[in-house]
Amino acid sequence: MTILVDMDGPLADFEKGFLKQWQIVFPNERFIPLEERTTFRIQDQYGLKLHDKIRAVYSAPGFYRQLPIIPGAKEALTQLTEKGHNLRICTSPLTEYKNCVLEKYQWVEENLGSSFIKRIIVTKDKTLIRGDLLIDDNPTITGVYSPVWEHILFDKPYNRAPKHDKRLDDWFNWETVLLNG
Amino acid sequence: MTILVDMDGPLADFEKGFLKQWQIVFPNERFIPLEERTTFRIQDQYGLKLHDKIRAVYSAPGFYRQLPIIPGAKEALTQLTEKGHNLRICTSPLTEYKNCVLEKYQWVEENLGSSFIKRIIVTKDKTLIRGDLLIDDNPTITGVYSPVWEHILFDKPYNRAPKHDKRLDDWFNWETVLLNG
Repeated sequence: MTILVDMDGPLADFEKGFLKQWQIVFPNERFIPLEERTTFRIQDQYGLKLHDKIRAVYSAPGFYRQLPIIPGAKEALTQLTEKGHNLRICTSPLTEYKNCVLEKYQWVEENLGSSFIKRIIVTKDKTLIRGDLLIDDNPTITGVYSPVWEHILFDKPYNRAPKHDKRLDDWFNWETVLLNG
Repeated sequence: MTILVDMDGPLADFEKGFLKQWQIVFPNERFIPLEERTTFRIQDQYGLKLHDKIRAVYSAPGFYRQLPIIPGAKEALTQLTEKGHNLRICTSPLTEYKNCVLEKYQWVEENLGSSFIKRIIVTKDKTLIRGDLLIDDNPTITGVYSPVWEHILFDKPYNRAPKHDKRLDDWFNWETVLLNG
């Protein structure tokens, strides 16, 4: 199987990294604890007034590279490749690409290992990518095509509202959900 | 139509940029004039002994960003998008990604304009990308899948040996070759 895995959310903990930097850079602004986040995009819950500050935090040099890895992710991805699956890390860059594109490659090298670098696909539109499955925390993935992959929603507090048939709660369950589902 | 365009070769003149830097950095080494280049990979014609020096030139900071644009490329890509085609720039990064990934984005912004940034797809394997056509100077494109796109070979001195049905000689002819062919 060709298995596509989104990076921010399923592999790199964007939300945790954001909240940590937010509290350091803007300690006097309100913050939303991780478990209370209800929208996919941070901006949509923090409110319009804070958009520029939010963007300043996540597009700053070093932000992507310091994101913590989701527990079990490295082991699961290693097992997937060892079982012969054709794994790809499928990630959409920020429009402010300057720091994030290079740092995504550095993050993969430092957190998953250099053998995973060749598996990175950077694209704004994931419907252009072929595969059997896409594991992604974004509940609504659209693009120029109707996707050929089945979307497995990687569970997060902010994506629990919409009904979704197939959901991966964490990386410790991957085999049950992906291969027997 | 979804039209995928390779970057090094059809858009950015990798060969010309390489030769220029090669003669600056290693003026005492032999060089091969552009019209006498016969292999797709530079290393294969310059010889094993020069591999490290060749790699040093094209992975140096600033190498990608300074590549000259192929004449007519910007105008052709702009026309393609204006006619409603779904254009994507589909590029494979060097294994030494440190400079090339960011500089590919900078090159697109500086040479084609910021509206083209969202059209970039970075992937080692182009068979994973969906599209109607791929314009690429590489005569042999392989990957995990059999491609869904038709390969249009972008003509270069080093890809004239293999027979190839459909060939784009330059960007001034794109409409005849791509749309009526």
